[in-house]
Amino acid sequence: MAEQPVTSQGTDGPITPRAQDYPQWYQDIIAAAELVDQAPVRGCWILRPNGYAIWELIQRDLDRRFKEHAVQNVYFPVLIPMSFIEREKEHVEGFSPELAVVTHGGGEKLEEPLVVRPTSETIIWSTLNRWIRSHRDLPMLLNQWCSVLRWEKRPRAFLRTAEFLWQEGHTAHASGEESRAFALKMLGVYYDFAEQVLCLAPLPGEKPAHERFPGARSTFTIEPMMQDGRALQAGTSHDFGTTLAEAFEVSYQGEDGASHPVHATSWGMSTRTIGGVLMAHGDDRGAIIPPAIAPIQVAIVPVPGRDEESTRAVEDAAALALRELTFAGYRVTLDSRPGLRPGAKYFHWERRGVPLRLEIGPRDVAAGQATAVTRHDGQKRPVPLSELQVHVEDALEAAQVALGQRVREAREAHTRTVDDRTGIESAVADGYASARWCEDTACAEDIQAQTRATIRCFPLERRDGAFVQPPDDPGDCAWCGAPATRRVIIARAY
Amino acid sequence: MAEQPVTSQGTDGPITPRAQDYPQWYQDIIAAAELVDQAPVRGCWILRPNGYAIWELIQRDLDRRFKEHAVQNVYFPVLIPMSFIEREKEHVEGFSPELAVVTHGGGEKLEEPLVVRPTSETIIWSTLNRWIRSHRDLPMLLNQWCSVLRWEKRPRAFLRTAEFLWQEGHTAHASGEESRAFALKMLGVYYDFAEQVLCLAPLPGEKPAHERFPGARSTFTIEPMMQDGRALQAGTSHDFGTTLAEAFEVSYQGEDGASHPVHATSWGMSTRTIGGVLMAHGDDRGAIIPPAIAPIQVAIVPVPGRDEESTRAVEDAAALALRELTFAGYRVTLDSRPGLRPGAKYFHWERRGVPLRLEIGPRDVAAGQATAVTRHDGQKRPVPLSELQVHVEDALEAAQVALGQRVREAREAHTRTVDDRTGIESAVADGYASARWCEDTACAEDIQAQTRATIRCFPLERRDGAFVQPPDDPGDCAWCGAPATRRVIIARAY
Repeated sequence: MAEQPVTSQGTDGPITPRAQDYPQWYQDIIAAAELVDQAPVRGCWILRPNGYAIWELIQRDLDRRFKEHAVQNVYFPVLIPMSFIEREKEHVEGFSPELAVVTHGGGEKLEEPLVVRPTSETIIWSTLNRWIRSHRDLPMLLNQWCSVLRWEKRPRAFLRTAEFLWQEGHTAHASGEESRAFALKMLGVYYDFAEQVLCLAPLPGEKPAHERFPGARSTFTIEPMMQDGRALQAGTSHDFGTTLAEAFEVSYQGEDGASHPVHATSWGMSTRTIGGVLMAHGDDRGAIIPPAIAPIQVAIVPVPGRDEESTRAVEDAAALALRELTFAGYRVTLDSRPGLRPGAKYFHWERRGVPLRLEIGPRDVAAGQATAVTRHDGQKRPVPLSELQVHVEDALEAAQVALGQRVREAREAHTRTVDDRTGIESAVADGYASARWCEDTACAEDIQAQTRATIRCFPLERRDGAFVQPPDDPGDCAWCGAPATRRVIIARAY
Repeated sequence: MAEQPVTSQGTDGPITPRAQDYPQWYQDIIAAAELVDQAPVRGCWILRPNGYAIWELIQRDLDRRFKEHAVQNVYFPVLIPMSFIEREKEHVEGFSPELAVVTHGGGEKLEEPLVVRPTSETIIWSTLNRWIRSHRDLPMLLNQWCSVLRWEKRPRAFLRTAEFLWQEGHTAHASGEESRAFALKMLGVYYDFAEQVLCLAPLPGEKPAHERFPGARSTFTIEPMMQDGRALQAGTSHDFGTTLAEAFEVSYQGEDGASHPVHATSWGMSTRTIGGVLMAHGDDRGAIIPPAIAPIQVAIVPVPGRDEESTRAVEDAAALALRELTFAGYRVTLDSRPGLRPGAKYFHWERRGVPLRLEIGPRDVAAGQATAVTRHDGQKRPVPLSELQVHVEDALEAAQVALGQRVREAREAHTRTVDDRTGIESAVADGYASARWCEDTACAEDIQAQTRATIRCFPLERRDGAFVQPPDDPGDCAWCGAPATRRVIIARAY
């Protein structure tokens, strides 16, 4: 379709339709949008400029939200002594199979092997016994932006990668009530972020015991639905109670003069969310990126005229639009590449998921307008050049809202309340089953063995900003018939 | 001095005077300012909130400067196959002794060992042969923010650490003129940043051949002087010519249809610069942080009155000042900690290097003023509360200028033009020697063996924004007497 490749890499290859092969479609749109490239180490990907720019925008927004909660950024080393990992029993069981182990350093065999951080609870809590002495040191609210490494058997770009970028928050509190409240507060940050910025209409919930983070007392999660009806765990927040404080001997002197154990949380969100955004919003033409995290929000494409004069008028109008929108703070590009037809340029920016395209041709200039095309719905409408900024603002805001609405509607349409095995099997084929479950791990394992679906969470409701459990809804477990008190969401997941 | 420890860690211990023991003074002010903590892995430090916040401000400013030059951020994996490191002869010789080697992953011995990145030239250039095909792909301007790991025999906080945070830029160009020009352009970015933001009055120059980055054709550097007269290499920019393209077989098809080799640069600045800032500006009372990178620029300390009414008036005025300055965009804290005398609070913020302290007591409130104390010179002056913002702005700007001026004057005072061995020996005892040198590596090694000083650089001058070599100044090598054409800076260094 393009006269020549837009880059030298042939990323203008065909995109497999979703209906035909959803996993292949996902790979195709990632290639089309030039987000990542394969790394020479198995399970690792390179984030290309367009992919990393999305992460930068995610970082900037999330970091601001954390700082509003008085969280302070820190940096702990990438190498952790193996013995630290082994100090918390569940932690070592959870992470040992995934570790990358450094055995040699500076040309010599190390006395103790070191692991490349899979997560930093152990190294941070081994330090907190120096930083926390008194109730005046609490709460201590820390976060770090870094990469972690977990050996992956079945890697998939963004969704499941050996190394990934993330933030990991680690906090210390004076009581179990406080740590639980803070873990839920961070669930709220993730929920709001995924809702408002990523447009993922995330489902908030609490993990069942067998799906908790190793060592955690509670694990909270947001579980948006992808277009194939599968769930994606997109951010988790853990309340550890005193598990970590006990393993690393961290206590504080209270106002009463006595020694008390410290209560912990940790919470993380990663580049995985980019995979969620791609899977939730993209279509058969390519990626669709929500305006809030789109590296380029507006692509201006000039359409040359038949003569030099009309072409120059188009170029002038396009350059003016670029200046005006850039000055107003939008992320804009003017596609003035020579030797490419406008159609090839439309194709290029569509595949990359740029939310808004402004086409400016001779007839547009004559009419004092541009033709605005919104990526998420393909709608075209004329916008007056004299009021470009307000129209661009409206169009981007509307796109942001429409994307979230579309994903929410899809989730609601594909969530079925079911009460028996057939119902679960049928619901998880293309969405979420809301079903009573007996809370027995063996039953969950049987569900997974039979349907490839897992217990995603006990859903939480949000009231006045706080997450609460819905009222009990007792009855029989939809799978095994044993007594059950609550409904869970069961789904296949990435 | 403080009634109680400000934190539970006793960081209000004494600070060794610089004149008595400069290295110990450096350690003391780092502890006093709570910037880092020792990590459990040798040679690694933890960046505490106050230390990381400085790095965030450095990052934000530098990143903006890179983007003004159309540099795009990316992320390449932390693990690099050992065979990649071995593909460029000088590179492997330079880095092999410092590598951390991963031999096991996912519970199994790896077929090929992987190294934790010491720098990313090899993994990036192994990828660029997929990204660069045509002259239309050039220049390709990439950068990444990450950590690197190089085993260190003699670690020292910030200055020489096994793991450190940095940015590494990697660019590809169509010609050797372009790559050299870009390496010098990035030297300019570092120079301006170190001059304007870090107030380091850096000396720009080119490294002699034996001090170049492994594989580079030219290495450019900025070399600010610390208060003990030693140099600190604070940022380097390398022109590789075609070295990397040859090792990794990266070529491009030119407009002429023929295949041409690609020319490379790389350039990096790290958390080491924080060590430079501390060493260049601090005094015997603690750290001094330039306003541009100070996590807290203004500390407001209320001084209670003798009665409740006057105390409340002070608290109200302090709260108003906090709101006004925060709203104006300054990084401000109000120290309302109970149970601490004002003197203890002054002590606390002084040690942390906060540029400006505003003391507000009952007499100040009565006079409609605050007492402003600038950290770098200890000057006190009254400022009207009604015009607080403009006075704060002036005071911070003046501090930023004065710090740079002070460092520049110190460097000039401690740089001596010398023409013989005695002159070199005497100059490097407390500063820089400007001396003719024969450009023979054996002579440089002898200088180092005798004086512990090294050839820092051939200084460059900046004219109309470009770096140029000063005119030749032929004569005898000040050390060995052999013919020499240019002067170099010789100094002891960190």
